[in-house]
Amino acid sequence: MFDTPEKNRPGAAVDDVSRAAIRIRAFEQGGFIERDDALAVERALEIHVAGAEPLITMRTPGADRELVAGLMHGEGVIRSADDIVHLKPAPGEADVIRLMLKPAARERLGRVERNTLATSACGVCGKPSFSPPVPPAGQKTTAAAHGVLTPELLLSLPARMRADQGVFESTGGLHAAGLFDGAGTLVDIREDVGRHNALDKLIGAALLAGRLPLSDHILMLSGRASYELLQKSVMAGLPVVCAISAPSSYAVALAAQFDLTLVGFLRANRFNIYAGGWRFDTRTHTA
Amino acid sequence: MFDTPEKNRPGAAVDDVSRAAIRIRAFEQGGFIERDDALAVERALEIHVAGAEPLITMRTPGADRELVAGLMHGEGVIRSADDIVHLKPAPGEADVIRLMLKPAARERLGRVERNTLATSACGVCGKPSFSPPVPPAGQKTTAAAHGVLTPELLLSLPARMRADQGVFESTGGLHAAGLFDGAGTLVDIREDVGRHNALDKLIGAALLAGRLPLSDHILMLSGRASYELLQKSVMAGLPVVCAISAPSSYAVALAAQFDLTLVGFLRANRFNIYAGGWRFDTRTHTA
Repeated sequence: MFDTPEKNRPGAAVDDVSRAAIRIRAFEQGGFIERDDALAVERALEIHVAGAEPLITMRTPGADRELVAGLMHGEGVIRSADDIVHLKPAPGEADVIRLMLKPAARERLGRVERNTLATSACGVCGKPSFSPPVPPAGQKTTAAAHGVLTPELLLSLPARMRADQGVFESTGGLHAAGLFDGAGTLVDIREDVGRHNALDKLIGAALLAGRLPLSDHILMLSGRASYELLQKSVMAGLPVVCAISAPSSYAVALAAQFDLTLVGFLRANRFNIYAGGWRFDTRTHTA
Repeated sequence: MFDTPEKNRPGAAVDDVSRAAIRIRAFEQGGFIERDDALAVERALEIHVAGAEPLITMRTPGADRELVAGLMHGEGVIRSADDIVHLKPAPGEADVIRLMLKPAARERLGRVERNTLATSACGVCGKPSFSPPVPPAGQKTTAAAHGVLTPELLLSLPARMRADQGVFESTGGLHAAGLFDGAGTLVDIREDVGRHNALDKLIGAALLAGRLPLSDHILMLSGRASYELLQKSVMAGLPVVCAISAPSSYAVALAAQFDLTLVGFLRANRFNIYAGGWRFDTRTHTA
């Protein structure tokens, strides 16, 4: 029914922009193997609106014009395509979209802006240029020593976390963030409809108890690992982050940058290592 | 290790604030049954910071102090509990937290504010008071007539969507939003690391093609249904929203308010109806 599907910028195949190749080490059937894997790409998009402040949002590249149109529609700014004078990628600049609105829509955007305040609730949205906060100088995530992580330890975490996840079990509707010590004992757990909220609550509890940085601990996430969750983990000094599901490309890049160990698809009998494999004891498990 | 777990406000049990009871109609084993169910609560929290603009974020109630502490830590504003003068629920006001920072932390918040711009990327974050946009007067979601939905139609949607979900299959890391016509034919699909982005792209594509409102269509979400996704659906005039996983309490309330049909836990052989059951033909399937 839609005649002009635009899954990507003209000329690019879906896979080129939304998927990134990576070489990972996987633990499965009792041993480690190396293999190729694919990550969903996560990258910042700048939206330059004529006569207004720029916006920025994290997204998977592709269909950027549609993303901007839909986002502005959800806020009541753009009501139909007639409200748009111009909506195009900036020539020669990746990850920048230029938007010009007709006066009535521009006025509605102004009302949204006046009603909208600075907030950090989403971690990345609303920043005019993408410069995430960095941890204080000298904060290190070195407490988990070389070769200290074992497959047995990691494979035990999902069941330990589920056992303590009350609301999720009954509603299926909450994300959980669990904090484990180096021996795999569950230290604390928080749940929320928002995955970033669950992690904020967990780290906030540690902060209020004077326990930061969490350099001796392992973080376990009930879902996927996005940029935002890794950024919060870096700030809290966490050396090891494990997720039940997939990490994004940006999460992997951030883990590598700050030398965190990032594990994904952690289930009862398998997991993938995306960064920081040096913390594993792989000698006894080479396939 | 943490001596003062604060899963909720003092005196409240976890279940009281994070879980809401609801009576639903479920389709399972070939017939409809009525039963009690539980929803994860999703509600707006106002953060009143002394000397600064208020912030607002959606969250599951409980551990609100910890949420605020962790959120401010992730942004580099609060570095330790010493930065906090005062962090307490407002007396007599539900869903309001008051925060007073020491001067150095207050100054860091100022820098975040100056670097942060109005944006609607997250739908709800950053609004000083919680007043979501509403669809234009006269926009109706009446196209799906009384009794027009059948269990057979809905149960066929997940497989149809998965067949077209390229990147998700290979990375496991993307949310998808699929648009179906009233006959269950997949019309369009978008994927993104952010679930709100996938829906923005889908609705944006329809907008750019002059196809809004989508009053003849069914929306299918690959994950959970939160407030934000329902709000965008309402704006687009969608009458039926189906999710593979759970809806939040706020999503259900919004669906009821705008008379949308909201279906959750839609799998190959079962689903739950949370709102708008009148669109179903239930005569031939009463258990």
